[in-house]
Amino acid sequence: MAPRIKTRERIVQTSLELFNQLGERSVSTNHIAAHMEISPGNLYYHFPNKQAIIAELFSEYETLVNTFLRPPKGRQASVEDKRYYLLEILDGMWRYRFLHRDLEHLLDADPELAARYRRFSQHCLIQAMAIYGGFVEAGILQMDKVQIESLTLNTWIVLTSWVRFLCTTRENSSRLNQDAMRRGVYQVLMLESGYVTAAASDEVRSLCEEFYVPLQQALADAV
Amino acid sequence: MAPRIKTRERIVQTSLELFNQLGERSVSTNHIAAHMEISPGNLYYHFPNKQAIIAELFSEYETLVNTFLRPPKGRQASVEDKRYYLLEILDGMWRYRFLHRDLEHLLDADPELAARYRRFSQHCLIQAMAIYGGFVEAGILQMDKVQIESLTLNTWIVLTSWVRFLCTTRENSSRLNQDAMRRGVYQVLMLESGYVTAAASDEVRSLCEEFYVPLQQALADAV
Repeated sequence: MAPRIKTRERIVQTSLELFNQLGERSVSTNHIAAHMEISPGNLYYHFPNKQAIIAELFSEYETLVNTFLRPPKGRQASVEDKRYYLLEILDGMWRYRFLHRDLEHLLDADPELAARYRRFSQHCLIQAMAIYGGFVEAGILQMDKVQIESLTLNTWIVLTSWVRFLCTTRENSSRLNQDAMRRGVYQVLMLESGYVTAAASDEVRSLCEEFYVPLQQALADAV
Repeated sequence: MAPRIKTRERIVQTSLELFNQLGERSVSTNHIAAHMEISPGNLYYHFPNKQAIIAELFSEYETLVNTFLRPPKGRQASVEDKRYYLLEILDGMWRYRFLHRDLEHLLDADPELAARYRRFSQHCLIQAMAIYGGFVEAGILQMDKVQIESLTLNTWIVLTSWVRFLCTTRENSSRLNQDAMRRGVYQVLMLESGYVTAAASDEVRSLCEEFYVPLQQALADAV
């Protein structure tokens, strides 16, 4: 059985690479099989169709996000935690960028995935609200409950729409680069910029500088 | 010639209604002609294809936005101006909601429209930055240039992604309602909430109350 399991994993990883590089719509199962130098039949032994591969990649992404998107346990949140979340988000957005680019199309094509995505986004919103609440408790941000709710929602929208924003705003949407992604994470950090307490402002400011990418650079095409 | 001009206008308005109601993908030119009780040939006399109708609707939308998205001339901005912009945005989002729902698909299908959309979004960002700058000058908001730039970008992303956010988050994406739209405008208002000066805080707070729609209500399906 061992080699087969390995083939299954290779299919998933190859699909991710090709989807990220070319966009999910331009990649067929035959394309994936050819790229791996296996027969289409061998691929179908592991996955009945492309949707099943996408569902698997979505599971991976969901697991990744669930791993880091939670408030620290048994201690107060710090600005260092904020850096940690932002770096994890950046990493996830970059590694699974095809999901962010083609999300609506993917959900339209697969009602089951759409239902899973709804549960996932609800869960993320709840976790993110708890995390922001923790930053308020730690004296890093100053917000009331209504502000936490709308900030969380805006964070979710900016993060999940950033890749699409890049694609509709730039001439060449097929070339995403990490600088452009980084600016998306910076945009999220700036969402809180009006709520940072005086006590935390120096630390948060240097975090902003760390993630800053000039807009022109983010919107320019990769060379 | 008069009746023909009238037919042309009726095609555009009927298309808008049907696109909004059913989604642009579900509506064909035959569908539009049948709904108007005219022959497909009559429709093709005015528009070579559906893309041409969409391009015309986009022009209408562009004109609408360009009409209101500009700083007041010869006087300082006021909180009342903010209310005006928000109401205009709400009206435009609602009347042309199919554009917001299907944007990426529409741009993918029409490179010329995609190029026009890039110029449009660039123009909107410049105008919005000038408007926010005006609110800073008027002592309503307190922000530096970097904050204005990132706020403007976040506003653009939240507004242009809100309809899609509703569609991916709710069970029944085909039924958009004005309450759900209103919450999108509220989200934009909340983007500035951390930057409101003490002097303007009462007035802005009552504006927030005016646009507030509970999240559960915005995400619930219309009956």
